[in-house]
Amino acid sequence: MAWFRSLVRVAAIETRKASSNPLSTTPTLYSLKHLSTAASNQRRDPQPTPIQYSGLEPTRPDEKPRVVVLGTGWAGCRLMKDIDTKLYDVVCVSPRNHMVFTPLLASTCVGTLEFRSVAESIGRIQPAISREPGSYFCLANCTSMDTNNHLVHCESVTDGPDSLDPWKFKISYDKLVIASGAQPLTFGIQGVKEHAIFLREVYHAQEIRRKLLLNLMLSQVPGISEEEKSRLLHCVVVGGGPTGVEFSGELSDFIIKDVRQRYAHVKDYIKVTLIEANEILSSFDDRLRQYATRQLTKSGVRLVRGIVKDVKAQKLILTDGTEVPYGLLVWSTGVGPSPLVNSLELPKSPGGRIGVDEWLRVPSVQDVFAIGDCSGFVESTGKAVLPALAQVAERQGKYLAQLLNSIGKAEGGKANMANGMDLGKPFVYKHLGSMATIGRYKALVDLRQSKEAKGLSLSGFMSWFIWRSAYLTRVISWRNRFYVAINWLTTLVFGRDISRI
Amino acid sequence: MAWFRSLVRVAAIETRKASSNPLSTTPTLYSLKHLSTAASNQRRDPQPTPIQYSGLEPTRPDEKPRVVVLGTGWAGCRLMKDIDTKLYDVVCVSPRNHMVFTPLLASTCVGTLEFRSVAESIGRIQPAISREPGSYFCLANCTSMDTNNHLVHCESVTDGPDSLDPWKFKISYDKLVIASGAQPLTFGIQGVKEHAIFLREVYHAQEIRRKLLLNLMLSQVPGISEEEKSRLLHCVVVGGGPTGVEFSGELSDFIIKDVRQRYAHVKDYIKVTLIEANEILSSFDDRLRQYATRQLTKSGVRLVRGIVKDVKAQKLILTDGTEVPYGLLVWSTGVGPSPLVNSLELPKSPGGRIGVDEWLRVPSVQDVFAIGDCSGFVESTGKAVLPALAQVAERQGKYLAQLLNSIGKAEGGKANMANGMDLGKPFVYKHLGSMATIGRYKALVDLRQSKEAKGLSLSGFMSWFIWRSAYLTRVISWRNRFYVAINWLTTLVFGRDISRI
Repeated sequence: MAWFRSLVRVAAIETRKASSNPLSTTPTLYSLKHLSTAASNQRRDPQPTPIQYSGLEPTRPDEKPRVVVLGTGWAGCRLMKDIDTKLYDVVCVSPRNHMVFTPLLASTCVGTLEFRSVAESIGRIQPAISREPGSYFCLANCTSMDTNNHLVHCESVTDGPDSLDPWKFKISYDKLVIASGAQPLTFGIQGVKEHAIFLREVYHAQEIRRKLLLNLMLSQVPGISEEEKSRLLHCVVVGGGPTGVEFSGELSDFIIKDVRQRYAHVKDYIKVTLIEANEILSSFDDRLRQYATRQLTKSGVRLVRGIVKDVKAQKLILTDGTEVPYGLLVWSTGVGPSPLVNSLELPKSPGGRIGVDEWLRVPSVQDVFAIGDCSGFVESTGKAVLPALAQVAERQGKYLAQLLNSIGKAEGGKANMANGMDLGKPFVYKHLGSMATIGRYKALVDLRQSKEAKGLSLSGFMSWFIWRSAYLTRVISWRNRFYVAINWLTTLVFGRDISRI
Repeated sequence: MAWFRSLVRVAAIETRKASSNPLSTTPTLYSLKHLSTAASNQRRDPQPTPIQYSGLEPTRPDEKPRVVVLGTGWAGCRLMKDIDTKLYDVVCVSPRNHMVFTPLLASTCVGTLEFRSVAESIGRIQPAISREPGSYFCLANCTSMDTNNHLVHCESVTDGPDSLDPWKFKISYDKLVIASGAQPLTFGIQGVKEHAIFLREVYHAQEIRRKLLLNLMLSQVPGISEEEKSRLLHCVVVGGGPTGVEFSGELSDFIIKDVRQRYAHVKDYIKVTLIEANEILSSFDDRLRQYATRQLTKSGVRLVRGIVKDVKAQKLILTDGTEVPYGLLVWSTGVGPSPLVNSLELPKSPGGRIGVDEWLRVPSVQDVFAIGDCSGFVESTGKAVLPALAQVAERQGKYLAQLLNSIGKAEGGKANMANGMDLGKPFVYKHLGSMATIGRYKALVDLRQSKEAKGLSLSGFMSWFIWRSAYLTRVISWRNRFYVAINWLTTLVFGRDISRI
């Protein structure tokens, strides 16, 4: 800090000088000339950065117990929102400092909503993290865990041209909540990671939007071949789950409403194809599925049944040999365990997720819990692994926050202090129904509790209205509720923005 | 298009089949199996892309004359907005498909305004470009000009991991308007381009915002050294013109209002230093300058007089030997001619800009005009080169649109048809005053017509109000006026968004 103190010192001197001559044209511009040599000798070069930082030691007896939360998805964020920060210090480790409101992410790819309207910063979800002296947010990945010693190893995350070498540090925990989510499945198909774009993070949506607008503009280069124009403007979506269907719906809506008007030169070339190996929206009611199929077809989405075998830079190949040239490829075929989860030597559930008992504890280790897409019931509980849905993750986060709060109140917050404690009721999941939008003011709402059960299912404008209202009230902060409403309004009035920024 | 026709054909067959069995669970999911082999034999591989496209030939006698506009800044956009598209086809060549509302760009770096609120797509500024059959927007750079044959050589611009090799094409013009702007001056100082961020485009503002939030988060890594924390959070701005001062003001406002609240762990480490070789805001009235200096100092910006000699990855070195470590370096020391302008064999103005006469024509060549920061009066006009201001560029665009419209009405629109035509009044620039904001509801408004003249100058809250209102009415579309107002409102009510997306 020597350089800084010397700057301040000069500033103070110069201010006094300047004030004696208030009409000078440069009253408080400081000169550093006087002590340049002395100052630069004092200074140490900050460049050789030590790569290992101390991190956080175990909490002392006079400190609050520390809950370390890995991840900022639905599960982790709901937990952090509800946890009692008078009982615990919260340290969150995640490569992103915000939660993504995933059900609305598809709408941002074409500009119906803005990116920031669907991202909620952790500081807003749990203000204590940025204010309490013992709470932190670390922009980092957890690389490994030492459950015997109650600590996690982390590595800072940076990006961009100036990115630093990752810094390594350790964080000791009293309670650990693993909520690090899952990763997109590629089924080992070559080229998916290189050429397709997933749709799980805000930067995915940004990439899709930039690529779509780029292709629309490239296809207008005077003299381009018909073949190339058709390829550039062929948008292929692989995977017919809610995300793939919602994105296809938004895309066809964008084409009908905006591309036809603003890209008149190429409007007849842009096409959307949705490729699915089985049925689209397979978890929905039969009649809803047929309705979705009719609506998507009507709005110009071509539904193709096929299995992708190989992905090249500008075409994909199906198992039957068909080659499908594309300009934009969005991959949305479900999720599976992440490399971190695979690497952990913890009990596993069927399907390779981190195994948990009915109280969402990881059996055989102390003070470790797992929630959301990264976790599943171990076989011995006799319960099925729950689907990877926002709804499940959010309910688990809420449950675990209450559980940890009651443990904390009973003085069980510190490491190894909750042994043999009565944890109360186990976690039970009750499905509240599924929703999906299919573009053009149409949506599906399936209120049945399981695939086999009977119950209410809705489609059309009313369910679109319910869908929009339901999401508006679930967006967490008032700021974002407000922006989502404003975005929908301006899209309706002015159309979508097509600036490629 | 063989692949596309075959997809459609199968789709048609399958739709008929499916409709005979309306309750099938997969009514219109098409199978492609039947003609896989045949189809894939027919298909040509689209990958070997021809790199040279034909472009646009000279206009035929039955077509409208074609105005080619290079650039989408203030000058080019004002021209395109006002040009009569009944008289002319407009072809715009630019590496960005939007105009940046530069006076508000500094506000987007810290989230006071959103990026999209300050970007206006060309399609909104001149809808004919996306609708008229002879008008185009080309996402491309002009690489050279052949003024004897009335044509420009262009190269398409792509980016991102999948970027294509640039496509080359030629565009013939009847009238050419060069409005390609200037580029930031680095005075040959090593390391500026590599380590500093300019503040001229939306992507610059995005980079600054991401870097600032990254450094705020990295500085919270538990165990980081005091030295490194201070470096990461030292924001240095080089250049005390309106852009540098506005950005410093916004940054200190962000620190006072948001960082203190949301980054309590590091709030005492973040500092802003503004380095200027001469005086800040040198074009403004003396008293306004003193006011700005007092206000900036009061809000924590340290003003340092110095000349940068060298820029390294984490520190810069002044000519007096002082080393200044930084985490974020923003460079804003004015603009100079771009490589394209330097390479052109056209008459030049003092300072190396493209030379123009009183009617903004480039002397010695036919049908070529230059406006905005890339142009300046040739010495023989006896007029001084105008400053590189949005105000000048916008006025020139407006003037030239009227001039071209009157030429077009007099049947002089086609190539070589305006020779000897009476062009009416020459372009005269009248300065309407300068404005700059300095954060915290304070701004400067200098209504004098030149540095020497007497006239009104204002500072403080009222001029902040005038500044905001003036800009609100100058933002071009209603959509963006609305978003700017909404952004200001939510910043006031909810604070700025700190999600790093």
